[in-house]
Amino acid sequence: MSNQLPYYYEVNLEWLSERTGELTAEHLPSLQIGVPPEFGGKEGIWTPEHLYVASVNSCFWATFLSIAHNSKLEFNQFRCSAKGKLEKVEGNGLQIIEITLKPRLTLLSESDKEKAIRIIEKAEKNCLISNSIKTIIKLEIEVVNA
Amino acid sequence: MSNQLPYYYEVNLEWLSERTGELTAEHLPSLQIGVPPEFGGKEGIWTPEHLYVASVNSCFWATFLSIAHNSKLEFNQFRCSAKGKLEKVEGNGLQIIEITLKPRLTLLSESDKEKAIRIIEKAEKNCLISNSIKTIIKLEIEVVNA
Repeated sequence: MSNQLPYYYEVNLEWLSERTGELTAEHLPSLQIGVPPEFGGKEGIWTPEHLYVASVNSCFWATFLSIAHNSKLEFNQFRCSAKGKLEKVEGNGLQIIEITLKPRLTLLSESDKEKAIRIIEKAEKNCLISNSIKTIIKLEIEVVNA
Repeated sequence: MSNQLPYYYEVNLEWLSERTGELTAEHLPSLQIGVPPEFGGKEGIWTPEHLYVASVNSCFWATFLSIAHNSKLEFNQFRCSAKGKLEKVEGNGLQIIEITLKPRLTLLSESDKEKAIRIIEKAEKNCLISNSIKTIIKLEIEVVNA
């Protein structure tokens, strides 16, 4: 894979009206976006802040899937909630200062619990979006049995 | 606004099958996501990398709208392409090292051109997602007349 790097990801935005717009990217379904209600937009549309939290959550998940596959970990459910905190930082304006990830993994065998926790922790450390940001990532792991 | 901070943004992920999942958030339409093809996923689904580039692009746009509104700038079209570069960084693994933003603004009056450029540059500097990341943002501005 490393021979093929760098990879590029392109997303286009077009302003529609008021505080709404549309995101398009090659081969992908288009996505309506808006300014969040607390900044003058309206409810019910994906916002920059939600997309950011979504990118961290989904990259963590994708990295977990990859490491779990290589480690032959067996599970039948994976969910993860991610909650980003937007705060004013002295000298740097508004910032998403932290994101709390709460993965919930359902294992087929209880004996895999410690291994599963190690894999989840490794996934967070190796996530390429986590590597790209200043936001602090907190991890609250829950591992249960099927 | 500062009295109400912090704001929270929560997004939940559920693994569906193979390398696809679903993102949900309160009041928002659900969004299918997947691992990108170059990491073993299939084409045609939003990926963590695309969501990340989308969050930067849309936050820049939202910040531009806000500053342009406060500055009474008149325009009738705003588009912006954003291209993220994923590269291996020594000692830190894979990382989105830079995103190039190419805004294209259509003004109603040519005399607003310099003001418009200042507003676009200010929008990039004040974007709360830009403030939250290590990724370098490059800006290539195009301002035209209607």
